[in-house]
Amino acid sequence: MKLSFAKRMSYIKASEIREILKVTEQEDVISFAGGLPAPELFPIDEINEINQIVLKDAGTKALQYTTTEGYVPLREWIAKRMNERLGTVLDKDNILITHGSQQGLDLSGKVFLDEGDIVVCESPIYLAAISAFKAYGCHFIEIPTDEHGMVMDVLEDVLSRTENIKLIYVIPTFQNPTGKTWSLDRRRKLAKLSSKYGVAVIEDNPYGELRFEGESLPSVKSFDTVGNILCTGSFSKIFCPGFRIGWIAGDKDIIRKYVLVKQSMDLQCNTIAQMTIAEYLKRYDIDKHIGKIVAVYKRRRDIALECMERYFPDTVKFTRPEGGLFTWVELPEGISAREILERCLERKIAFVPGASFFPNGNKENTFRINYSNMPEDRIRKGLHTLGEVVKEYISRSE
Amino acid sequence: MKLSFAKRMSYIKASEIREILKVTEQEDVISFAGGLPAPELFPIDEINEINQIVLKDAGTKALQYTTTEGYVPLREWIAKRMNERLGTVLDKDNILITHGSQQGLDLSGKVFLDEGDIVVCESPIYLAAISAFKAYGCHFIEIPTDEHGMVMDVLEDVLSRTENIKLIYVIPTFQNPTGKTWSLDRRRKLAKLSSKYGVAVIEDNPYGELRFEGESLPSVKSFDTVGNILCTGSFSKIFCPGFRIGWIAGDKDIIRKYVLVKQSMDLQCNTIAQMTIAEYLKRYDIDKHIGKIVAVYKRRRDIALECMERYFPDTVKFTRPEGGLFTWVELPEGISAREILERCLERKIAFVPGASFFPNGNKENTFRINYSNMPEDRIRKGLHTLGEVVKEYISRSE
Repeated sequence: MKLSFAKRMSYIKASEIREILKVTEQEDVISFAGGLPAPELFPIDEINEINQIVLKDAGTKALQYTTTEGYVPLREWIAKRMNERLGTVLDKDNILITHGSQQGLDLSGKVFLDEGDIVVCESPIYLAAISAFKAYGCHFIEIPTDEHGMVMDVLEDVLSRTENIKLIYVIPTFQNPTGKTWSLDRRRKLAKLSSKYGVAVIEDNPYGELRFEGESLPSVKSFDTVGNILCTGSFSKIFCPGFRIGWIAGDKDIIRKYVLVKQSMDLQCNTIAQMTIAEYLKRYDIDKHIGKIVAVYKRRRDIALECMERYFPDTVKFTRPEGGLFTWVELPEGISAREILERCLERKIAFVPGASFFPNGNKENTFRINYSNMPEDRIRKGLHTLGEVVKEYISRSE
Repeated sequence: MKLSFAKRMSYIKASEIREILKVTEQEDVISFAGGLPAPELFPIDEINEINQIVLKDAGTKALQYTTTEGYVPLREWIAKRMNERLGTVLDKDNILITHGSQQGLDLSGKVFLDEGDIVVCESPIYLAAISAFKAYGCHFIEIPTDEHGMVMDVLEDVLSRTENIKLIYVIPTFQNPTGKTWSLDRRRKLAKLSSKYGVAVIEDNPYGELRFEGESLPSVKSFDTVGNILCTGSFSKIFCPGFRIGWIAGDKDIIRKYVLVKQSMDLQCNTIAQMTIAEYLKRYDIDKHIGKIVAVYKRRRDIALECMERYFPDTVKFTRPEGGLFTWVELPEGISAREILERCLERKIAFVPGASFFPNGNKENTFRINYSNMPEDRIRKGLHTLGEVVKEYISRSE
């Protein structure tokens, strides 16, 4: 007899990014596909030094089990950082350490979603959030986003006439995939609507520390008066992703639910990774380190935008992010980014077609460009080639 | 308006062990409660040395994202080890690296279980497996276990007359909580029944390497002719738990499903932890290291059994494990292990009452003793006191 699997297995599909990333493992491919940080900026020497200190001073603790909630000094640092930077009022008991911010999304699905429930999100939105939530059998309602963020009138209209909405999922700062950042006003309004309609907000914030220009804005969470808003964060983009250390912050009673759920899933995150980050934060100036990352990524963004301006035809539009890792490209209607990708892969250039970022499918004429991972000369070369392919493809289809 | 949570949140409860473990954080408590390895046996110096090598030789890779499947040399080692020790025929594509063996259980729930499905298990069984599966809304049917393992006639009877059984969950070697080990014959029969009735088996094997005496046995997986059996493993008990590195092994098509599910949950396990273990396995003799652990735990088991013999009344029964971390105690009928625990906690002794190990509730007169974590003198002292409390309690209730 054949085995039978859970129903959810029929909605869980391979991520297009992960498949493209396999192609990009070849060294000669110029990849704009992943959201990979620049590895040459990882603080390898500092990590090496601090690992040794942690193992020498507290090796038995660093290698043993710890609590599900996570290492207290790290949770304290995160709460303080969020309060200073994002205008929140949190302490360690508002913080759960997770395997990257990704696990915060999966836990949110597990805590909030029953089959048939609805998640409201920006359109387009982070691909791997779609798969994380979809595994709990939810449907998505996409809300359009203008240059100030999610359009609140449309959101309120949807909230007022739809049952079973359990989560509103947003990335208000340097959004993935568009690079857009919400205005202060939209942040405030989202918090109000969340409270008015009793729907939890997941404010995903893995890129917020990577601002190249413009003014820092308080988080949506900072406008939360009732405890409905949860906010993720991550050390992946400001320290290193290989440690798999992120967090989710929220109301203490809700975080306790997340802790229970995580406990039965994997007990806890890597102990020594948590202690190493905490010790690094004590001994080194993370803002100086973030400053270095920001300088490099800003330069890469500048070059990417300059090349796209120069090499892409005028009918192609793209966003100008104030920070983060991505810009979003819109080709003329009817042009397929997937077909352009095929031609690019032959010429050893990779990116992610935009359709996968729309949970209900859409917009074959879009794609996402990551500019953080490649050195400057390869960005130039890659976008030059990409521009040629795009021009060629468009002129043929006319 | 108040938030509404997923239905599953009503079945997810705090683990009794985790609550007791909080008490045991006080240094003067003698704890037989957790399943903690002895931290004085962690290879701290070796890890320190190897961390430095990994960071120096491949720092950018060790701190970057990697594939969901996990680090190839580590998966290759695991496949080879299982083939040699457990009689399986596996290669790296049969192996997914997980956050400890615990995540293998959670993933199994996610891949196989719909609400209302049934998990068949030994009685009693590992507490945190109950919570992992319960989160997917399943029910449990418990099968009695004698000195050779799960009673196969009862299992076949249940399989033949019950619908919706999706998983059979077992720990055939040094079981948690009983310390029991299944015979070769029972292993073979389980594989046959799994194939006959088309039900997947999760063979949980985190303790299998810790054998003090007796002959090593092939895994249930080694008798799998159709690909229905998945087998977990872990570095937590033979290396260190703080790294959170374990695995699940199974049929390649099924493992691909697990990979998809894990990908949307947390992308991957800690990269440098995987590389450090793989490098350790290349440079050091893990069997020598396991030999050290086994010698210490065997001595602790001997002392624990000797003390229980001496200090416990004759009406109290306990198991004599050939390996692993636990022995299982049965008090006379009607005696409550929870009440004995309360009295013990006043005298700074902790253990886990047995009732939580029965998914459908039962057997208030049982408890689990862990002997791996405390030094010898504290085992003696603790079991002496525990024996006194038990005697006192029993004589009062007569």
